[in-house]
Amino acid sequence: MDLSDWRDKIDEADRKILELLNERARYVLALVPLKKKAGIPIYEPRREEQVFENIARLNGGPLPPDAVRRIFERIIDEMRSIQRGPMEDDK
Amino acid sequence: MDLSDWRDKIDEADRKILELLNERARYVLALVPLKKKAGIPIYEPRREEQVFENIARLNGGPLPPDAVRRIFERIIDEMRSIQRGPMEDDK
Repeated sequence: MDLSDWRDKIDEADRKILELLNERARYVLALVPLKKKAGIPIYEPRREEQVFENIARLNGGPLPPDAVRRIFERIIDEMRSIQRGPMEDDK
Repeated sequence: MDLSDWRDKIDEADRKILELLNERARYVLALVPLKKKAGIPIYEPRREEQVFENIARLNGGPLPPDAVRRIFERIIDEMRSIQRGPMEDDK
């Protein structure tokens, strides 16, 4: 495998990651009306901590735990923004 | 589907995202000796821009383009760190 073969594999992984991020975003948007109905706020620190714990437990590397945590912090931050919608975006 | 069903789906998406991030990290680490041999630096702005362009082109939403860009900036930043290794980490 040469440099460009590995890059093709990286591009393919990125394509799948992007697809899953949008899949996750769809689930997160589906939650909004359910949360509103149940009177649950968009920002739930306990649930977010649970997500980070799941990730930390499942991580087999080579990415170190702090790198994985930072990536998921960014992901969750963006998910929170789309749940709030453009009008309420207070990022 | 109730709140906890959607959360199960979110946890499952996170598990797959984590797996793909580590897969991508393995590819990126495989590149290091090839880059060294070819005299190519770890940080290649042109290649990184190409990755962002791929992502922007493939993004079908609901995540907006700027959200996707920020997530991939974080991913690529962490990938660069592991390529450099703990001794050369200048983050």
